[in-house]
Amino acid sequence: MNNLDFIFQRRSIRKYTGEAVDKKTIEQLLSAAMSAPSACAKDPWRFIVVHNKETLQKISEGLPNGKFLPDAPVGIVICGDIESAHANELSYMLQDCSAAIENLLLAVTALGLGACWLGVHPREDRVKHIKTIFKLPENIIPVGVIAIGYPAETPAPRQRGKAEYITWHD
Amino acid sequence: MNNLDFIFQRRSIRKYTGEAVDKKTIEQLLSAAMSAPSACAKDPWRFIVVHNKETLQKISEGLPNGKFLPDAPVGIVICGDIESAHANELSYMLQDCSAAIENLLLAVTALGLGACWLGVHPREDRVKHIKTIFKLPENIIPVGVIAIGYPAETPAPRQRGKAEYITWHD
Repeated sequence: MNNLDFIFQRRSIRKYTGEAVDKKTIEQLLSAAMSAPSACAKDPWRFIVVHNKETLQKISEGLPNGKFLPDAPVGIVICGDIESAHANELSYMLQDCSAAIENLLLAVTALGLGACWLGVHPREDRVKHIKTIFKLPENIIPVGVIAIGYPAETPAPRQRGKAEYITWHD
Repeated sequence: MNNLDFIFQRRSIRKYTGEAVDKKTIEQLLSAAMSAPSACAKDPWRFIVVHNKETLQKISEGLPNGKFLPDAPVGIVICGDIESAHANELSYMLQDCSAAIENLLLAVTALGLGACWLGVHPREDRVKHIKTIFKLPENIIPVGVIAIGYPAETPAPRQRGKAEYITWHD
């Protein structure tokens, strides 16, 4: 077991057993998400936890790569509050929400669950679709949706880094 | 030890012992960073590893919150290649780079190192400052700089999540 296997073991999981994810586990996952750093500690992330199958179905209809979302026992919509973000900057809001999402995905893996990150922002149709379903105010901007469940597939850990993406400046 | 302590233990570290970080360790950290998911697997992240004290000093002069950067034995500049990002979208580029940065920070913690994320994007002066130092082409956009070293301070693990940021939609 490599020290960093908790990272290499995270893979996108799109098939789930029927088992439910209990509320305490979801609270742990969100605590992990909110332990990410954020620009000037503004913590602009907001989370909508969805169990309702019909709502998951509705969400999936606006996400071309998320047709399997209703198979997951829970979906979490990650939004940013642009009014809470440092300097009201979209860039900071996206960086903060993405760090939180990555924490969430690694926590999912560590707890024996599986997840898949479905992109929303910057696709205007997807943003509008999610905003309409949840009647979100203007300042709350959907960034992504995470499908979560107990995994019914077990892809191997993977390292796919490329040396060509690194410049050594000594 | 909580299962998720690998996340709660990550804290911003701004004081370092003089000990060097070896190349193999840095390669591990970057492999962890590049194991983050990215939109359509475009992996638009690019990394500049900096050991040179004068260069770290120069970088720090453009980062108001990064005066301690030259105290770190190594700094990593994370950039995005907007031409490689999915649909050439800045939003995807930022999301992908931020997920990679969060992986990097957690890997740092797991290996007994400490780090601090210094923001660059979207501040135009900071972006230009970094681009000038490394003579970066137009498509390579600096996102952040990570100061890394062996920690000379040991803040306690922390959970700072707020229940009010969660909406339960059953």
